Amino acid sequence: MKFEIMRHRLIEGLNDVMKAVSSKTTIPILTGIKIEVTEEGLRLTGSDSDITIQTFIKTEENGEQVIRVIEEGSIVLQARMFNEIIRKLPTNDVELEVTEHFQTHIRSGKSEFHLIGLDASEYPLVPEIQDDRQFVIPADLLKSIVRETVFAISTSESRPILTGVHWRVKNGELVCVATDSHRLARRKTILEQMPEGEYSVVIPGKSLNELSKIIGDSSEPVHIVMTDQQVLFKTSAVYFYSRLLEGTYPDTSRLIPNEFTTKVTIDGKALFQAIDRASLLAREERNNIVRFTSLKDNVIEISSSSAEIGQVEEEIQSTLVEGEELNISFSAKYMMDALKAVGGQDVKVQFIGAMRPFIINSVHDDAVLQLIVPVRT
Amino acid sequence: MKFEIMRHRLIEGLNDVMKAVSSKTTIPILTGIKIEVTEEGLRLTGSDSDITIQTFIKTEENGEQVIRVIEEGSIVLQARMFNEIIRKLPTNDVELEVTEHFQTHIRSGKSEFHLIGLDASEYPLVPEIQDDRQFVIPADLLKSIVRETVFAISTSESRPILTGVHWRVKNGELVCVATDSHRLARRKTILEQMPEGEYSVVIPGKSLNELSKIIGDSSEPVHIVMTDQQVLFKTSAVYFYSRLLEGTYPDTSRLIPNEFTTKVTIDGKALFQAIDRASLLAREERNNIVRFTSLKDNVIEISSSSAEIGQVEEEIQSTLVEGEELNISFSAKYMMDALKAVGGQDVKVQFIGAMRPFIINSVHDDAVLQLIVPVRT
Repeated sequence: MKFEIMRHRLIEGLNDVMKAVSSKTTIPILTGIKIEVTEEGLRLTGSDSDITIQTFIKTEENGEQVIRVIEEGSIVLQARMFNEIIRKLPTNDVELEVTEHFQTHIRSGKSEFHLIGLDASEYPLVPEIQDDRQFVIPADLLKSIVRETVFAISTSESRPILTGVHWRVKNGELVCVATDSHRLARRKTILEQMPEGEYSVVIPGKSLNELSKIIGDSSEPVHIVMTDQQVLFKTSAVYFYSRLLEGTYPDTSRLIPNEFTTKVTIDGKALFQAIDRASLLAREERNNIVRFTSLKDNVIEISSSSAEIGQVEEEIQSTLVEGEELNISFSAKYMMDALKAVGGQDVKVQFIGAMRPFIINSVHDDAVLQLIVPVRT
Repeated sequence: MKFEIMRHRLIEGLNDVMKAVSSKTTIPILTGIKIEVTEEGLRLTGSDSDITIQTFIKTEENGEQVIRVIEEGSIVLQARMFNEIIRKLPTNDVELEVTEHFQTHIRSGKSEFHLIGLDASEYPLVPEIQDDRQFVIPADLLKSIVRETVFAISTSESRPILTGVHWRVKNGELVCVATDSHRLARRKTILEQMPEGEYSVVIPGKSLNELSKIIGDSSEPVHIVMTDQQVLFKTSAVYFYSRLLEGTYPDTSRLIPNEFTTKVTIDGKALFQAIDRASLLAREERNNIVRFTSLKDNVIEISSSSAEIGQVEEEIQSTLVEGEELNISFSAKYMMDALKAVGGQDVKVQFIGAMRPFIINSVHDDAVLQLIVPVRT
């Protein structure tokens, strides 16, 4: 293998695939990056066996020669070291050559590195995925969907299935649900190009978080292909593979109430900030609990106290309080997470007394719905 | 105590004094900030007993009323909590009131906190320092002096005196020296207003690092007052006190050689970058050692190897090599630290063979001198 490449493009490619490489892997070759060069271009692959990221740099881009291929071939190089070397090389022209016994030579200006590589044929193969059953979501919308749900997954391994987000496609609608059994986040999205059939997969939360870091904020289409064991997200620059979680996701639809005894319409940002302040004291206690009380004249009081430090009271003028008076306690963190996910200015919070789960959504639509189980005090 | 204050000025004051507060203190009251208000203004004090930082906010600044004092008084409030509350309050108007039993009420908009404070009379007193023996250094020069020396202190407590920087004023010159016995940094500064007498103090490296974070990059004068046990740095906004290290600093003047067998004049930035790259492999080995070899035609080679990973060679065209050929090994980190401290473009590196300490300074002057003990390989 021998080729020359423009360093800044190689760095861009490494930026993506490095996100899949973990130093904690138990499979030694996965501490490396697979580098394959053909007449078409350079393919880089990084993986931690749960997530695999591939990027392809074409020999020519927009009429400019990015790579000059002298001899096709492949090699695996220790990822962190290779990445740091490329970043620090003195010029934009980099030459990479593999000689016998996987000896790899990296040259740039008057700098020359000689590394011992690994046999690329020992690197795990990327799963083969038929792309006849794919659907498309714009990158920025995909990021929103992840942001509005993934925070609610469970971080405990006692029920592994809850560490993922349940994605279900049916009748042209994508419904994403995450829950840790104390709260739940649901996001519904109408798909423009309805895929055939029905899909139901559980994607690890960690994979979705990494995916979010890689895809841009543009409206570029992301092609999504689901199989029984893998999901693939494809953009023009990157292929992102994730394994799926095995098992059946619990049916959460019955958890979400339809009838309520108290409805509060309120400025979500003001509510967020009041809870943020109240939680300064609340978090010193065990549970980070704040109290939410409806006073007269549509005023909502948020309060909290810590035996050692003191108390706090906040008053917020809400737009409207309908139904019964209310005095309920809940986790400040859960409520702040939910308000961030709902976004926008005015939110609707609907309760059935102080003991039953309550829901939060935008006054404009219920594409994003958040549910929180209150705390008995 | 009762006063109102503009929140943004209180935040600025807290930014400074918070830097002295440590959560690891063994003296409980030092987890707090002392707040004293008089008709003149508000004084905030934070301390970890080694460093004490005081800031004063005047009632009126540039004709604008910043503080409205209703009742003079003082209180100690838990620093981290108080700081976070002030940052998150909803309006720029903050009222602080202390009622009986050190009950402290913080009000802003519709937000109201009630904290339990501590008796300010139990807070340690700031050392009294006579300011008749002070000298002045512009803030930006002071920061340079710290930056060029403090990195070379010892981090080991086996010789505590070496964890500080030796400041010596004599004949109108300030000489600052730091060493960990493997390398040494020296900075000489001519003082414009020569103070009377001779001073010799050892300032803890940690204090100097904190001082650097607090003083600005302006040419504002910093007044420095040295006593037997304390040093005080005064700017218009902040009083920064540090305890001094006890004991006698070793005489380092004899360590610095005057005659050399090889002199190399070289682009410091190119040398830095070559060593930076070579150290990518070197740091995988025990000592992070690179080799420096003079080749013909004024070419310098930097090289390094790691048995497991590979080798690297870098060539740099130096301006001039005088004297004997050289092949010497040293710590990449020490050399990079030294080159950063010397700064500028062209540096002079002077050696006495491969076994003796060598020195680095700018070709223009020797205000900053760096010495490194080589490694035998």
